Amino acid sequence: MELGVGGSNPPCCTKKMAKEKIIKPSKELPLGFVDRKEKELLIRDFVISNIKEVMIKYGFQYLETPSFEYTDSIGKFLPDKDRPGEGVFSFKDENKWLSLRYDLTAPLARYVAKNYLEITKPFKRYQLGTVWRNEKPGPGRYREFLQFDADYVGTKNLQADAELCVLISEILEKCGLTKNDYTVKISSRKFTEELFEKLKIQSSEQASTTLRALDKIDRLGWAEVKKLLGKGRKDQSGDFTKGANLNEKQIDFLGEKIKDNTPTNKDILEIIKIFEAYNFTNYRFDPSVIRGLEYYTGPIFEVNLNFEVKNSKGQAIQFGSIGGGGRYDNLVSNFGNLDCPATGISIGIDRLVYALMQKKDFDLKPSRPVVICIFDQKNIKNYFDILNKLRLSNISSEIYPGEGKLKKQMEYANKIKSPCVVFYGDDEIKKGEVKLRNLKTGEELSVKIENLVDEVKKLI
Amino acid sequence: MELGVGGSNPPCCTKKMAKEKIIKPSKELPLGFVDRKEKELLIRDFVISNIKEVMIKYGFQYLETPSFEYTDSIGKFLPDKDRPGEGVFSFKDENKWLSLRYDLTAPLARYVAKNYLEITKPFKRYQLGTVWRNEKPGPGRYREFLQFDADYVGTKNLQADAELCVLISEILEKCGLTKNDYTVKISSRKFTEELFEKLKIQSSEQASTTLRALDKIDRLGWAEVKKLLGKGRKDQSGDFTKGANLNEKQIDFLGEKIKDNTPTNKDILEIIKIFEAYNFTNYRFDPSVIRGLEYYTGPIFEVNLNFEVKNSKGQAIQFGSIGGGGRYDNLVSNFGNLDCPATGISIGIDRLVYALMQKKDFDLKPSRPVVICIFDQKNIKNYFDILNKLRLSNISSEIYPGEGKLKKQMEYANKIKSPCVVFYGDDEIKKGEVKLRNLKTGEELSVKIENLVDEVKKLI
Repeated sequence: MELGVGGSNPPCCTKKMAKEKIIKPSKELPLGFVDRKEKELLIRDFVISNIKEVMIKYGFQYLETPSFEYTDSIGKFLPDKDRPGEGVFSFKDENKWLSLRYDLTAPLARYVAKNYLEITKPFKRYQLGTVWRNEKPGPGRYREFLQFDADYVGTKNLQADAELCVLISEILEKCGLTKNDYTVKISSRKFTEELFEKLKIQSSEQASTTLRALDKIDRLGWAEVKKLLGKGRKDQSGDFTKGANLNEKQIDFLGEKIKDNTPTNKDILEIIKIFEAYNFTNYRFDPSVIRGLEYYTGPIFEVNLNFEVKNSKGQAIQFGSIGGGGRYDNLVSNFGNLDCPATGISIGIDRLVYALMQKKDFDLKPSRPVVICIFDQKNIKNYFDILNKLRLSNISSEIYPGEGKLKKQMEYANKIKSPCVVFYGDDEIKKGEVKLRNLKTGEELSVKIENLVDEVKKLI
Repeated sequence: MELGVGGSNPPCCTKKMAKEKIIKPSKELPLGFVDRKEKELLIRDFVISNIKEVMIKYGFQYLETPSFEYTDSIGKFLPDKDRPGEGVFSFKDENKWLSLRYDLTAPLARYVAKNYLEITKPFKRYQLGTVWRNEKPGPGRYREFLQFDADYVGTKNLQADAELCVLISEILEKCGLTKNDYTVKISSRKFTEELFEKLKIQSSEQASTTLRALDKIDRLGWAEVKKLLGKGRKDQSGDFTKGANLNEKQIDFLGEKIKDNTPTNKDILEIIKIFEAYNFTNYRFDPSVIRGLEYYTGPIFEVNLNFEVKNSKGQAIQFGSIGGGGRYDNLVSNFGNLDCPATGISIGIDRLVYALMQKKDFDLKPSRPVVICIFDQKNIKNYFDILNKLRLSNISSEIYPGEGKLKKQMEYANKIKSPCVVFYGDDEIKKGEVKLRNLKTGEELSVKIENLVDEVKKLI
């Protein structure tokens, strides 16, 4: 394995030695990865704290599996068949392959198999964690996501499937969405299974290719999906994807069934009955819901937003779902003869946060410290006295941390949107006072040291 | 790239087709990775919320960089020279190498370089995130860590370095440690630089090897480190590590200086003065503090716990530091001619949590739902009425989510440590009552539906 040249300057040797070999490294991020700033992170914290509250209320256990698993443990369930490692980031390690998890479900199945005897079943666990997909890089296609998952393991009871849809909706409403803002769509793999039987689909490969094609209706539209169901399709970049090789009659039959919103499947009807017991109405049976992952065996869910989401240029975009899931009764049994039906749902937290930021104003508490200016290093101890007082009262504050003169200090305080600065010069020190300048209004106020905390609290 | 066989059972095809090829995957985790359960995660949440509070109080901005960077952007600063990729997980992506971050400092430097003109300096940011080190697997050596970092970028002011030590100590005390429980050790790369000049160390390589050797005093002891300073050392596995090739006189001189705790270095003396202004006394100058990472240029810090930590077998272990950091004035300038001095500190959150769990009892709020038993599916709507009532009052609760009879339901409720179960059979439904069984005492209580919430609140 070859690594790039980092251009370190070993601190322990002379300048001449350090200059031996300097190549400027890239300042850019690899495609599909982003930096996230305060506002987004604070909204994300808000979303996460809502999730945790709902999870405790619904009686789910907190669990965390690591980011790496043996590649064979998490299997090949991703739809991205044409990518290296089928869309997974993998590394060879002492003769075995490791992969970064591409979801939180496959690792959960591994966890359950490993701890099968100790786990009380049904096992209800939730997890928050990053997942990675080695997607083809492109605009708006991320390769790293923060995901929330809630799963029921060890039960066939469809109450579990229904409750997953209900709890997701409780989370979304806690985050500030109304019933009009989102819909939980449900369908079932058994429904497509029944269709495929009628279509006389021959191999598991043809079935998977058909599912993957149907999964793209939202993004590509029916005309393009028809190509993927038939011979195949060339995308805008010129790459060709082989199709499912269905004939025209089969494709037309599929197209018709996939648009019919009347629930007929037994499981779906039972889930709808349970929704009624929850007084949950914000769902729709939609047979065009497929979900990309291959491990689903029964009911599947998808959570869609009903409002317009814009990209950074202000253009409305096809936002797709913010989450989904389904029943995967065979995933744990892959590890041995363990009968362990399960069902789960997940939310893409980053996507939800992105949409929420456009929908709603948040009352955030960003870091906006009061800045204590430095007039003279000889008085530094006095500035610290002020700082210690403010912080003791839990007021976000700092002594100007740089090396500039007063003008630079004021520029700094304004740029970081400090609510006010503290002036504590020789005169003020003598009088036992400080001067506070409100940076919003520009007003100045002389305050006795003993009243400092109260006055600052009024300003912030 | 070859992937293992996942053994999926494509849900859409017949059983015969699904059985085409089934190889049981591993249930184990790769070495160096672990699953984390509720108790640990709740304590971790507590630690993280303390960190965030302190960060806001000290005026730091929340930032998050992604887990992957271009390999050349984060450079080669790890001490683990003898591992593939020098201890970093890397892989090739469209002809460029990507790496998982091994710390949060190198990515911060990349972020600052990328956004140099927009960033208000000094820039105070904090980050919480996983870092990965492709360490040689072994007992107790993890390859994935959750880390917290706080950094000052764009200032040479030693106030910054001092404040980092103070804020770490505030975080630790907020988490429940006392002043006796920890010490912040400080030293400076300039101190070792001065030593190396006296020793007439010739090359940057010899200097780095010497630093890496000294960094291992805590773990290996002076006798073994002497070998690493000289010709080299064979470890228990038989692997040989080349030494720094110092002669005996040089080694003895180093050994003496590294044990002398009287601060002489100018920076250290200034930092100590600032500590006094903070009334911060819980530090010690310790020249044997080295810190492994190569990018440090000035003051360095290390946070050590003073109490005994045990492994899972109850044996006391050499726990090492829970965090540290230092000044890295050249890291940003590697990306171009950017003059951008900086300093930072980090905590290994998992290690801190591990130690805290042994030191302190926490008042945790684990998920312990009230369980509503199922007597008869025909009454399921009644059970949901109870459930909706409890959850509306934010009481953690669930209808038994499995398929078993009453005996199995009680076993389940006991195993998950439910505080009480709700019986709502035909008789109770008729009377408008429920029966509550307290699972700690075994007592049963008949309660009118309208008093249910209050009675359950008394029990939990």
